[in-house]
Amino acid sequence: MTIVAMHDALAPTNGTPVADPGSVPAIDFRVSPDTYKHWRIALNGDVATVTMDVDEQGGLVPGYELKLNSYDLGVDIELYDVVQRLRFEHPEIRTVVLTSGKEKIFCAGANIRMLAGSAHSWKVNFCKFTNETRNGIEDATANSGQTYVAALNGTASGGGYELALACEHIMLVDDRSSAVSLPELPLLGVLPGTGGLTRVVDKRHVRRDLADYFSTKSEGIGGRKAVEWRLIDEAVPRPKWDEVVAARAAEFATSSTRPNDAEGVTLTPLAKTRTPDAIGYRYVSAKLDRETRQVAITVLGPEQDAPADAAAIHAHGVDFWTLAVTRELDDLILDLRTNETELGTWVFRTLGDGARVRAYDQLLLDNAEDWLANEILLYLKRTLKRIDVTSRSLIALIEPGSCFAGSLLELALAADRSFQLLGTFEDVDPGAEPAAIAVGSINFGALPMSNGLTRLQTRYLGQDADLEAVRARIGTPLESDAAARLGLVTFTPDDIDWEDEVRISVEERSSFSPDALTGLEANYRFAGPETIETKIFGRLTAWQNWIFYRPNASGADGALRKFGTGQRADFDRKRV
Amino acid sequence: MTIVAMHDALAPTNGTPVADPGSVPAIDFRVSPDTYKHWRIALNGDVATVTMDVDEQGGLVPGYELKLNSYDLGVDIELYDVVQRLRFEHPEIRTVVLTSGKEKIFCAGANIRMLAGSAHSWKVNFCKFTNETRNGIEDATANSGQTYVAALNGTASGGGYELALACEHIMLVDDRSSAVSLPELPLLGVLPGTGGLTRVVDKRHVRRDLADYFSTKSEGIGGRKAVEWRLIDEAVPRPKWDEVVAARAAEFATSSTRPNDAEGVTLTPLAKTRTPDAIGYRYVSAKLDRETRQVAITVLGPEQDAPADAAAIHAHGVDFWTLAVTRELDDLILDLRTNETELGTWVFRTLGDGARVRAYDQLLLDNAEDWLANEILLYLKRTLKRIDVTSRSLIALIEPGSCFAGSLLELALAADRSFQLLGTFEDVDPGAEPAAIAVGSINFGALPMSNGLTRLQTRYLGQDADLEAVRARIGTPLESDAAARLGLVTFTPDDIDWEDEVRISVEERSSFSPDALTGLEANYRFAGPETIETKIFGRLTAWQNWIFYRPNASGADGALRKFGTGQRADFDRKRV
Repeated sequence: MTIVAMHDALAPTNGTPVADPGSVPAIDFRVSPDTYKHWRIALNGDVATVTMDVDEQGGLVPGYELKLNSYDLGVDIELYDVVQRLRFEHPEIRTVVLTSGKEKIFCAGANIRMLAGSAHSWKVNFCKFTNETRNGIEDATANSGQTYVAALNGTASGGGYELALACEHIMLVDDRSSAVSLPELPLLGVLPGTGGLTRVVDKRHVRRDLADYFSTKSEGIGGRKAVEWRLIDEAVPRPKWDEVVAARAAEFATSSTRPNDAEGVTLTPLAKTRTPDAIGYRYVSAKLDRETRQVAITVLGPEQDAPADAAAIHAHGVDFWTLAVTRELDDLILDLRTNETELGTWVFRTLGDGARVRAYDQLLLDNAEDWLANEILLYLKRTLKRIDVTSRSLIALIEPGSCFAGSLLELALAADRSFQLLGTFEDVDPGAEPAAIAVGSINFGALPMSNGLTRLQTRYLGQDADLEAVRARIGTPLESDAAARLGLVTFTPDDIDWEDEVRISVEERSSFSPDALTGLEANYRFAGPETIETKIFGRLTAWQNWIFYRPNASGADGALRKFGTGQRADFDRKRV
Repeated sequence: MTIVAMHDALAPTNGTPVADPGSVPAIDFRVSPDTYKHWRIALNGDVATVTMDVDEQGGLVPGYELKLNSYDLGVDIELYDVVQRLRFEHPEIRTVVLTSGKEKIFCAGANIRMLAGSAHSWKVNFCKFTNETRNGIEDATANSGQTYVAALNGTASGGGYELALACEHIMLVDDRSSAVSLPELPLLGVLPGTGGLTRVVDKRHVRRDLADYFSTKSEGIGGRKAVEWRLIDEAVPRPKWDEVVAARAAEFATSSTRPNDAEGVTLTPLAKTRTPDAIGYRYVSAKLDRETRQVAITVLGPEQDAPADAAAIHAHGVDFWTLAVTRELDDLILDLRTNETELGTWVFRTLGDGARVRAYDQLLLDNAEDWLANEILLYLKRTLKRIDVTSRSLIALIEPGSCFAGSLLELALAADRSFQLLGTFEDVDPGAEPAAIAVGSINFGALPMSNGLTRLQTRYLGQDADLEAVRARIGTPLESDAAARLGLVTFTPDDIDWEDEVRISVEERSSFSPDALTGLEANYRFAGPETIETKIFGRLTAWQNWIFYRPNASGADGALRKFGTGQRADFDRKRV
């Protein structure tokens, strides 16, 4: 069985401890196809074949070899880039076939040596990003007309099978040795934590007792039984493999909503400056204050009025304000989450013309049938979702000159609390227009959270009249009194109290237990219904974090450390 | 502020470490009003006033004082008994007013010294039981016509406010000092983990930013603002307190469905024998095997045919089979969870006549309008729910002579996997009837899980045709082939393979990481929708467990340990 080979391959080859990846400075999420180490894209008409062919020596940090298509954060950063580029650069692609460049193995999941040697915070952040990319694959299938097909030309185990689970259709070669498996529990004493447990029962509707058995059977299940149990959609004999994969890709392409003869938008390299104290892009900037452990993030609104039609969105392309600002925000979020774990509070400000922001929003909404407008809206949605699951305290400061309107208002709605200045800063600009926010149509459906509700629906859960009162004010600038009355902002101090109130709020936040804040925020941000996505980030991730932290997994005698040594883990047998 | 007094009261009074409550043998859940240390019940017509008046010196184990109506497991065991007795013994009670016997404090929540000195497994199990009791209070309000009103005659902080949140209506005395609060995060570095975070936003619909602020403000919020924010339902001036509480109790009583002139059923002391190796009741018995770390649980079906009508249910009273067996199961679950944490696998068997079981079920269903039949069904529902959230692997063995039918079939459906013998045991009783199971009407609605679905609905999630195929076989004994075809059982080995297959399954289970199994089971058992209850046991509890285990809370310099010492906790600032 391939799985046996995997054990050997992943066994430590020497006694050198893995370097703590958490100590590596400034991981960069900006990659491009010409520098990919681990993935190949082949385009053929309306089908893209994405081949995972991991460079064993290409790990993000030294200390482990990425054997058997196992992955680390570096591999996943490239996959995320692949998914993004297929959406924006290739409107012609209707089916994406995910397969492997290795013989007999699709993917062995996250690299165990990497996990065993990583700090807890690194593991958790790595899993979060990995989850987001898999959710993005499902989003492409559901909303972009790019259907992902997993063509498992060999065993998919652990995170490899979890990657397949994110695809719409799973094909496995039927060769009496290839299988799908979730060996995390029996071999490593942890969970399949990137969606595996949730998608098996909630998406693929595998019966729970069969799922239980499957997840304790490290060698996995292949062939007809895997189809019967709904673990895969079809088992295909090797001689027919290429033919059937091609046929299936063509079938899914038929039902796509992607356009004909459209031209893609190249995701040109993102201009960015980064020093120890600041990160800067064109529209987004961040000041890193290590003393108060906060990041001050400022987002600029559009410099010019919104153009008139869909053609202009295409003409602006990667420079279209919404797309540009979303790319910058996305990169900033990933950078801060990965590289700046001690900066526990993010403070959002905006600067610009709210009416312009709403005009850009409206242009996208009015052209939502246009593939590019649709992609931009979906990307904005996904980026805002990243904020919701970010384990940092979020504060929005609404000051004169800000543009928390429409899409940018979502930043304030995503925040744990917000402050809107009553009046103006008398010492600075007494004649300024008082700070105002504005809701737009975009706040009422196009940008749902992971729970399937908009941030406004979540905010006014069970209070429909309050939500309708807000809807009635679409487009109206709301100064602090009106915004507070409607429940759109938390506090509205005046000039005299502003600085103290904000400072105390941030300082106090910074004095609390970071763990407890993470738990508090993970609960309060997701009122209302739960979906597969929220179950993954809530129930599954929280249990996995607990398990990761327990000695039974990560202790010196824990299963993660003992894996591949030939010794058994020594478990504390107490059930909790 | 009362909260300041609470700090002092809960500060360690000397350097003696708290004894590890986890080391205390055999906690007994069987209590009765004549031995209550901490609660008083006053009956007045259709209103019961339940007064919390915790005996400071009455802690379950030495090492802490239960000041300011703080509680430990012992206090909560009595509360559970109170709730059960009011339902069964007092059909005349329509409103239950929960209040405090202390001046100026309703309840200060779980005792901090107790928490700080407890083993992780003890904390988690304690919170689980506490949560179940609060869910039971909501169940009484929703389904028994006994509405709980929290009459907070002083500050309710932490778990005290969480207890109030389980009530339908929260009244707080308006005296400029009494408040409700969730000080766990700012003072202790943990979450309000017994439903607080979930109920604040999902039940009471407190706006998330206000909830966030509230949960960081240790002194809490009282008066009009607490009403405005929906933290409480009304603030009542002290001079009018008694009058308004009485009026509110009377109002809720008016809309109750409880009967007139009915006689209660006394919950007589539960007969039980307990040795290190066995626990025995009339219908339920358990063998504790410490070597293989399993408990073999056998449930006996009814000894006689079901009686004919509702009158007979009342006549049998506490000896009515369903009520008797449910009480025994309930006690066994609580005993094993608390006292036998290393016995990680529970193996369920039944013995009896399946048709009789279904006849008892049907009698209850046919008389569901009868208050007692209703109570018995609800109690059975709650007890089965306890099994779902029990962190033990559950295996059902369906052998000849068993009676996994109707209500008892739920034990097999709750199990992580089940085995049904194909044929008979040739060496034991070759002429026996082969093992058969049977679904009954009771499996299709009366016994929902916490997710709001029946166990069958959860099992066949997204597979409606499979569910309907099962429904079509109501009442038909299903031998192994038929049961397996319908997907009702996991494995159907024959006589030759049975012993090995079952043994290997249990042994294998026992070799896995107990933590990973807990996480796996907590995910697979709750496919489908999430409710307030499942969010509490999933999202909230899992985060809390993680936080409890982290040094920021429980380490030598963690917030739980430093509380009351005058020293600040020393936090690892990394966000995870």
